[in-house]
Amino acid sequence: MNHQGQRVIMGIDPGTSIMGYGVILVDGKKVHFVDLGIIDLRKEKDHFAKLQRIFTEVGQLYDQYRPDDLAIEAPFYGKNPQVMLKLGRAQGAAIAAALQRNIPIFEYAPRKVKMAITGKGAASKEQVKAILERTMDVKLDIKYLDASDAIAIAMCHFYQLTNPMADKQASTNWKKFIEAHADRVVKS
Amino acid sequence: MNHQGQRVIMGIDPGTSIMGYGVILVDGKKVHFVDLGIIDLRKEKDHFAKLQRIFTEVGQLYDQYRPDDLAIEAPFYGKNPQVMLKLGRAQGAAIAAALQRNIPIFEYAPRKVKMAITGKGAASKEQVKAILERTMDVKLDIKYLDASDAIAIAMCHFYQLTNPMADKQASTNWKKFIEAHADRVVKS
Repeated sequence: MNHQGQRVIMGIDPGTSIMGYGVILVDGKKVHFVDLGIIDLRKEKDHFAKLQRIFTEVGQLYDQYRPDDLAIEAPFYGKNPQVMLKLGRAQGAAIAAALQRNIPIFEYAPRKVKMAITGKGAASKEQVKAILERTMDVKLDIKYLDASDAIAIAMCHFYQLTNPMADKQASTNWKKFIEAHADRVVKS
Repeated sequence: MNHQGQRVIMGIDPGTSIMGYGVILVDGKKVHFVDLGIIDLRKEKDHFAKLQRIFTEVGQLYDQYRPDDLAIEAPFYGKNPQVMLKLGRAQGAAIAAALQRNIPIFEYAPRKVKMAITGKGAASKEQVKAILERTMDVKLDIKYLDASDAIAIAMCHFYQLTNPMADKQASTNWKKFIEAHADRVVKS
């Protein structure tokens, strides 16, 4: 966080073919869209060359945007073990580049991210994108949904910072509960 | 390789609890044992603190032994996907530290390693250790078999270097796996 109370959050959605990234700026309770993009690894045939590119290019992004926090997606239910190993290596390379720069890392399950943004754990990528656009009052020219996912992960972390107790679903529930049971609220 | 035709090979067996490493020196056709050891991560509760330690401490080992080549084990059949993701991240951190130092990386399947050392793909860790001791004419004081595994991986790479046909077979393992299981490849 800089001296003006602003906070840069970068989200990454690290895949072995396309690595999406998204950057937001938190200014008090307001969130501004900064940038999003992808690192396209599809033409990279060699596995270690891929990891090299991830480590180097994600590192350059960290240097460019100087995030206060890095938020990353942690898939909890995987595909096959071998795919998960390769995915883990890709994530490990991106994480190592952050550790090298002492950037704190936070991880969120995909369901948690969707829940935080839309209030539904099973929302589609398009629904997530639409809500992100409304929240940040910006039109996201998104060619690749991986990049919009990365913005969603960053936003999820923002919600976590401002409301550590819960995601949007839970906080909505709580608000409803308060409204329905105003008599039970203790004012201290 | 230095000017005397010597070559330092480091093998690592990266786990999420214990990371074994082993270093050998190849001098022409002779192999000398240099060192082995472990990085014990069992007391490290936080996942990212683990990755930080791997990235930093494996990096220190690279600086200490200055390997010409790094050899790493690539498990082809895993446990559950989530375990494989964590293992992949641990490997990714160790690989990133090598990439940062421009150390070439080679990977071998566990079966391939056992085959290279003992002639049998299903040899026990104890059998592998016994043959390594005979080959290098050294008594390995091995408290942790992870470290002896790391030596085996380094030796496997040495055999590949001296027998390029076998190397070809190893390097195509992953490709063959992909070809045989194209349905399992997830494009993200």
